[in-house]
Amino acid sequence: MRKPKVVVLGAGYGGLMTVTRLQKLVGVNEAEIVLVNKNDYHYETTWLHEASAGTLHHDRVRYDIRDVIDRNKVEFIQATVEDIHPSENKVILDSGEIEYDYLVVALGAEPETFGIQGLKEHAFSISNVNSARQIREHIEYQFATYNTEEEKKDERLTIVVGGAGFTGIEFLGELVNRVPELCREYDIDFEKVRIVCVEAAPMVLPGFDPELVKYATARLESKGVEFRIGTAIKEVTADGIIVAKGEDEVEEIKAGTVVWAAGVRGNSIIEKAGFENMRARVKVNPDLRAPGYDNVFIIGDCSLIINEEINRPYPPTAQIAMQQGEVCARNLAALIRGKEELETFKPDIKGTVCSLGEDDAIGIVFGKKLMGTKAAFMKKVVDNRALYMIGGTSLVFKKGKFNFF
Amino acid sequence: MRKPKVVVLGAGYGGLMTVTRLQKLVGVNEAEIVLVNKNDYHYETTWLHEASAGTLHHDRVRYDIRDVIDRNKVEFIQATVEDIHPSENKVILDSGEIEYDYLVVALGAEPETFGIQGLKEHAFSISNVNSARQIREHIEYQFATYNTEEEKKDERLTIVVGGAGFTGIEFLGELVNRVPELCREYDIDFEKVRIVCVEAAPMVLPGFDPELVKYATARLESKGVEFRIGTAIKEVTADGIIVAKGEDEVEEIKAGTVVWAAGVRGNSIIEKAGFENMRARVKVNPDLRAPGYDNVFIIGDCSLIINEEINRPYPPTAQIAMQQGEVCARNLAALIRGKEELETFKPDIKGTVCSLGEDDAIGIVFGKKLMGTKAAFMKKVVDNRALYMIGGTSLVFKKGKFNFF
Repeated sequence: MRKPKVVVLGAGYGGLMTVTRLQKLVGVNEAEIVLVNKNDYHYETTWLHEASAGTLHHDRVRYDIRDVIDRNKVEFIQATVEDIHPSENKVILDSGEIEYDYLVVALGAEPETFGIQGLKEHAFSISNVNSARQIREHIEYQFATYNTEEEKKDERLTIVVGGAGFTGIEFLGELVNRVPELCREYDIDFEKVRIVCVEAAPMVLPGFDPELVKYATARLESKGVEFRIGTAIKEVTADGIIVAKGEDEVEEIKAGTVVWAAGVRGNSIIEKAGFENMRARVKVNPDLRAPGYDNVFIIGDCSLIINEEINRPYPPTAQIAMQQGEVCARNLAALIRGKEELETFKPDIKGTVCSLGEDDAIGIVFGKKLMGTKAAFMKKVVDNRALYMIGGTSLVFKKGKFNFF
Repeated sequence: MRKPKVVVLGAGYGGLMTVTRLQKLVGVNEAEIVLVNKNDYHYETTWLHEASAGTLHHDRVRYDIRDVIDRNKVEFIQATVEDIHPSENKVILDSGEIEYDYLVVALGAEPETFGIQGLKEHAFSISNVNSARQIREHIEYQFATYNTEEEKKDERLTIVVGGAGFTGIEFLGELVNRVPELCREYDIDFEKVRIVCVEAAPMVLPGFDPELVKYATARLESKGVEFRIGTAIKEVTADGIIVAKGEDEVEEIKAGTVVWAAGVRGNSIIEKAGFENMRARVKVNPDLRAPGYDNVFIIGDCSLIINEEINRPYPPTAQIAMQQGEVCARNLAALIRGKEELETFKPDIKGTVCSLGEDDAIGIVFGKKLMGTKAAFMKKVVDNRALYMIGGTSLVFKKGKFNFF
């Protein structure tokens, strides 16, 4: 009898959790498991703001996929997914085609540009290891160039962060620590540097506890961040950004660096493949399968789960993606064994911690408000937990964060 | 009685040697000594190729001027020289004017562009700490950007070095060590990188011993350098360089980085001030004074000394600048004490060592040919000697090169 073939697309939090759990749940003779990923490494998306600012080396935020998969049970293919034909049980890769009996789509997110002109061309986004280290190097190059020019261009030292959501605030937290280092490195007066956070919504960190938001804003402002809240970016140019000012006016903010951190959408492969979607996210069935396809699971940032309490989608997070991966693995094992009853996915939000740099953070953990060093400690616990969930103790020792004091 | 005022312009090898010797030769009551320099630090010009390649941090190639001058005897002014009016005994600084009784012009060199179109706009030059760290960051940014682009641009990974003279070859020696590191850092296939050295003259390191040159060329080629000798750069563009090919044809070499290392001229202030000059270098009198001005010494790269044996100018080097500084200090002391007989300057070339990276070099020291690790060792001795001459043992311990093995 032919073994069923499970193909998992993407080795992010969701995909890798699915594979590492599934390889424990099923025997070698029960199923063929294939993992497809663009790179031969997994990276911690939730740590990319550190690599982007230059406060943590990008090799610290990634690890070899082969270190966490059981190579007797899982075949790893390094390839880029170009399309999915769900009605033919087929995936098109840049290196060829691959058929499946069961598919897990865990292809992650892409930056949401909201149609803002010039954004794709002139703004960086904190998307992956490649883009993170490019941001780090771009900022460093601006600082390195400043003193070489006869006529000093102070705008080289202006960094605009688009978005005061989770990623934007965490990136700002790293930047305020990194900029004084860059100033020393390149003989630059700190007063010349501007860090501007522009947010279209009327608040910082919408949905977060107001007291914690107040703390975060005050801390970042005290370290030099200018907040421009309720301000929409109209256009990004080679010289900076154009923002709306009042009803009809616009204002230019010149900046050598513009980093876009204002939200994500699902992967465009979802749209291309023809799944019913909202901004490339699929409202999956309670068992995480795609409507209309009994053998396709969609998890992580490409899936959309409604929070019934407030009747709004949960924001896509690593926490949810990993929990989905666990359920997805169990449901796959059930299907492989011919069971028809599948488990229902229900997020279990243990807490949320937003870093404000090395030794500062805000968060709610198990319903308790935290700020300052306690929250920063919890952030590291959360980061280490993600490693533990996928790679166990050995991965925590290898890649974990232990700079607690 | 008013003390005579000695003003020294520039804290490079020549200027700083003059000041550190003069402060020992004359008493506080004999003269007022003023040192003017653009930065508050001295940098080792002969080490800049390392900072430019990124093999040595730029803070290792510089030290605080205040650490080597006797602040009881020498007043340090951080300012940029804008002009000299030798007939009025006056120097124009960006921060005001300063008068002198005796002047030492030690303003160093500028890149010689030979009128090549686009060179100033599109090529970097290894001129100072600012430009060196900009080159390092520029190259790193090219490598960091490579993998972020959908369509890979291999030319980002091409580095053109214009000039196979001393600086060009030493820079290549560092690059061949640095590039494999960059490839690892940014997940780049080493085979994609090109390092091209373009030289208009028909040979590498003209004037050097042919056997040593052959060794150097072979070593660099074995590590991936392509030499294009007898090839003139016609133009530098935003995309790379245009070189002459045969009689009428041209060829484009696309390159993300073009570094110009093909020779220097004196400082343009020399021309502006009206001294008789050849490419901003003044053929000084045997006592190092400028023709026509009994109270103006010109030393270092702004001076021109003829090697009588071959009836050609000595190439401007740190070795000669420092020896001039010693003689200049003694001649100043003599003038201050009313003596009319001044010492004649005669270069004493102890040797020349050209580095080929961390552990390789070629050189002639006290008439003996050296190559490989022995030459590399001698190079470090030469580098440490420059520190010792100006700042003594303590400076050698602080900034010296001891990675001998």
